[in-house]
Amino acid sequence: MTYVETLGANAKAALRSIMTAGTMKKNNALNAIADKLIERTDEIIAANKKDLDAAAANGMPVTMQDRLKLDADRIKGIADGVRTVVQAADPVGAVDSGMVRPNGMKIYKTRVPLGVIGMIFESRPNVTVDAAVLCLKSGNTVILKGGKEAINSNKCLCDIMRDAVETAGLEKNVVQLIEDTSREAANELMRLNQYLDVLIPRGGRGLIKAIVENATVPVIETGTGNCHAYIDDSADIDMAVDIVDNGKTQRPSVCNALESLLVHKDIASKVLPVLKERLDKHNVEIRGCKRTKEILGDCVVDATDEDYATEFLDYIISVKVVDSIEEAIEHIGKYSTGHSEVIITNSFKNAEKFQHEVDSAAVYVNVSTRFTDGGEFGLGAEIGISTQRLHARGPMGLNELTTVKYLISGNGQIR
Amino acid sequence: MTYVETLGANAKAALRSIMTAGTMKKNNALNAIADKLIERTDEIIAANKKDLDAAAANGMPVTMQDRLKLDADRIKGIADGVRTVVQAADPVGAVDSGMVRPNGMKIYKTRVPLGVIGMIFESRPNVTVDAAVLCLKSGNTVILKGGKEAINSNKCLCDIMRDAVETAGLEKNVVQLIEDTSREAANELMRLNQYLDVLIPRGGRGLIKAIVENATVPVIETGTGNCHAYIDDSADIDMAVDIVDNGKTQRPSVCNALESLLVHKDIASKVLPVLKERLDKHNVEIRGCKRTKEILGDCVVDATDEDYATEFLDYIISVKVVDSIEEAIEHIGKYSTGHSEVIITNSFKNAEKFQHEVDSAAVYVNVSTRFTDGGEFGLGAEIGISTQRLHARGPMGLNELTTVKYLISGNGQIR
Repeated sequence: MTYVETLGANAKAALRSIMTAGTMKKNNALNAIADKLIERTDEIIAANKKDLDAAAANGMPVTMQDRLKLDADRIKGIADGVRTVVQAADPVGAVDSGMVRPNGMKIYKTRVPLGVIGMIFESRPNVTVDAAVLCLKSGNTVILKGGKEAINSNKCLCDIMRDAVETAGLEKNVVQLIEDTSREAANELMRLNQYLDVLIPRGGRGLIKAIVENATVPVIETGTGNCHAYIDDSADIDMAVDIVDNGKTQRPSVCNALESLLVHKDIASKVLPVLKERLDKHNVEIRGCKRTKEILGDCVVDATDEDYATEFLDYIISVKVVDSIEEAIEHIGKYSTGHSEVIITNSFKNAEKFQHEVDSAAVYVNVSTRFTDGGEFGLGAEIGISTQRLHARGPMGLNELTTVKYLISGNGQIR
Repeated sequence: MTYVETLGANAKAALRSIMTAGTMKKNNALNAIADKLIERTDEIIAANKKDLDAAAANGMPVTMQDRLKLDADRIKGIADGVRTVVQAADPVGAVDSGMVRPNGMKIYKTRVPLGVIGMIFESRPNVTVDAAVLCLKSGNTVILKGGKEAINSNKCLCDIMRDAVETAGLEKNVVQLIEDTSREAANELMRLNQYLDVLIPRGGRGLIKAIVENATVPVIETGTGNCHAYIDDSADIDMAVDIVDNGKTQRPSVCNALESLLVHKDIASKVLPVLKERLDKHNVEIRGCKRTKEILGDCVVDATDEDYATEFLDYIISVKVVDSIEEAIEHIGKYSTGHSEVIITNSFKNAEKFQHEVDSAAVYVNVSTRFTDGGEFGLGAEIGISTQRLHARGPMGLNELTTVKYLISGNGQIR
C-alpha cells in the first residue's frame, strides 16, 4: 500500500466513528479544536514562521506572503470560525420526505454523510481548518492536501485538530493531512476511487482544470466566475450604475465579482458615461467593443474574444453594447462559466426571460452578483461555490456535504 | 472535430430548444414518439431482423437473442412505457425552497434540467427509447450509445424519435445515437467534458467499472447489488423465511435480489432448516460457512470470501451464521455494494441500530429488498438505481435528472 492509499484506508476505517456520532459529540470535537487552536497559538506561529522564512527566501511576492501569515489575531479568527460551525444546524438525520406506500411499508428519505472527502487547496492555511470542520460537522472524514508553501503550518494545524477530536472521543483519523506535497501524491488522491467518495478542489482555474482532467473520483468543481451584468433598455440608470460598480469594485478578487457588462444599445449612451465616472474612482480599466469606444472615447481598450472569456479578478471590466436581450443571453451562453449573472431592468417580461433562459447557478434581477455566497443565501457556513451541475450547484453549505439514505420499515411485505 | 465531438456540439446547441420548452410541448413530443413507434412497427421489426440474423450467425446464446428481439407486442409495450412518462409530473420549474432575506431580496431555489446526458447501455434495444424519453421529459438532450448487437434496431428507433420530436417543434438533435459502436467512440464519450454534463451507464459490472476508471466527465454509477438479509435472534421465523425466499427467488436476475444471508447463532438451527425447505422449491444452491453446514448438512457448498463478495444474479445464496448484530453489520460493511440490506427482527433497539449503522442506499426492517425500485418507492419512471453517493443515491426518477438554479430578485440591493 502506498502512503496515500494508507491515508485512504485510515479515513474509511475511521468513518463509522464519526458517521454514527451524534451532533453533541461532533460539536464537542469542534469546540475542542477551537480551544486547542487558542491554547497552542505559539506553536502555530512558530510552525508558520518556517513557512514564511522559506517563502521570503524563495522570493514569494509580499501580498502572497501576507496571505500565508498567521498571527494571534488570525488564529483567533480561525477559532471563532470553528465556533460558528458549532452553532450551525447538523444536516445529518434530517428527513427530506416520507410516506406510507399502499402496501403499508413506510419510507423515509433521510440525510447521511457523504463519506470520505478529499480537499485539495492552495496556499492560505486557514482553509485547512475551515474545510476540515465543515466536513466533520456533517459527519464525514477528510483527507486534506494543501500547498507546499504552507506545509509546516498545515502539519501543525492538523496535529492540533487530530489531538482535539481524540479528546472528544472520535478517532484521530477522521482528519488527515497528506504531508507529501508532490504532484504525484495529488494525482494519486484524484484516482483513489477505492476510498474517496468525493474530491473538492478549492483554488484557481489551473488547479481545478488539472483535477477535472485527471480525476477518476467524483469531483465537485468550485469557483471560477466570469459573471455578467446586462443593462436592459428599461433599466433605472442609478440602480444599474450601483449594481455594476458594486459587482466590479467592492471586492474584485472573488468569484462572484462582475467581469463583463452588456448594455442595450438604446440606453448605452445614457448609462455608460455615468458608469465610467463611477468606475474611474477605482481606476477600472474598460475593455470595450467599437460602440463602447464611440460613446466613451479612446480611454477604452479594444476588447478581444479572450477578454470576454476572462475572469479578471482585478479592476478590469469587459463591455459590449448589444442590440437586444436575445443577443445578451446568447453572449452569456457563449462566455459565462455558469456562476452568477444579473439583468437590470424594469420590464417584467425581460426579467422573466432572462431568468428562464440564462443557465447559470444564480440568476439575478436588480441585485448585485456579489450576493452569491452561502452566508448571504442563509445557508450558514460555506464550503465553496459549485459551478458544476451534478450534486450541488451554487453556494454549498453543510447540507451539500451529505447524501441520502432510504429507511424502510414494515411487517413482512414481499413482492 | 471528431464524429463524437460533433454529436456533443449538436447536443449542446439543441439544449435551449428543450430546456426552455414547457411541459406541454415536451409531452407532445413524447406522444408523437409513441404514435410513430406504433405507425412504423414494420420498419422497426425489419431493422431488428438484421440484428437478429447477425446474432444467430455469430452464435449468440438463445436467451440473449430473445432479449434482443422486438415484435409488435414488445413495440407496443415500449410505446405504452412512453405514454406512462407523459403522465409523470415534470420536475422542471419546481421550487425546492424560497425565502426573503433580511435585505429584502427574494431567493427561489428551482429545478432545471441537468443539460447534456450521455447514456451507455448494453444489448436490449428497449432501453434506447426508455432512457431517451426520461431525459427529454426532464428537459435534457441525450446522446445514446448502445451495443453493437442492436445497432440496426437502435438506428431505426432513434430515427423515429428524431422525426417525432421535430413534428412537436423541438430540434432533432435533442436525441442522438452514436452510430460508431467501437470502444474508441465510447472512450471519447467518457472524456467529452466540453459538452457532456453527466454520463449514466446502464449495464453489467464490467461496463460500469470500465466507465468509472476511464471517465473524466461526471458519472452516475448504477446497478450492482450484493444485497444482504440479516435474521436477528428475535425474528419471526415465518416472516424471515418469506422475506429471504422472496428476495432470492422472485426474480433473481435483478439488482435488488438478495445474494447473501446472515443469521444470528441463537436462531440459526430453527430458521435455516425451514428456509432450506422453501429454497429447495427453486433448487437454490446454498454456499455456507462451517456452522451453516453443521445445521443443514453436506448439501451446503463451502463458501469462500469471493462468494460473500459476489452478486450471483442466479439461484445461489451465500450464508453465514454470526455471533451478534455487530458481526452482521461489520460483514455487510465489508462485502456490500451499498445497494439494499434488510434486518428481520422484533427488537426495536436492533432495528434502529441496523438502520443507523448499515450504510447502504436502502436499509429495510422486515420488508423484502425487492422493493428498491422507482415505481415501488412512488417515484414514477426510473432511470436506474444509483449505488454512488454523489447527486443521487438509490432509485433515480425524473427529479434526479435535474439540478438546481437560484433565482434572485430585488430592487437594487448591493453589498
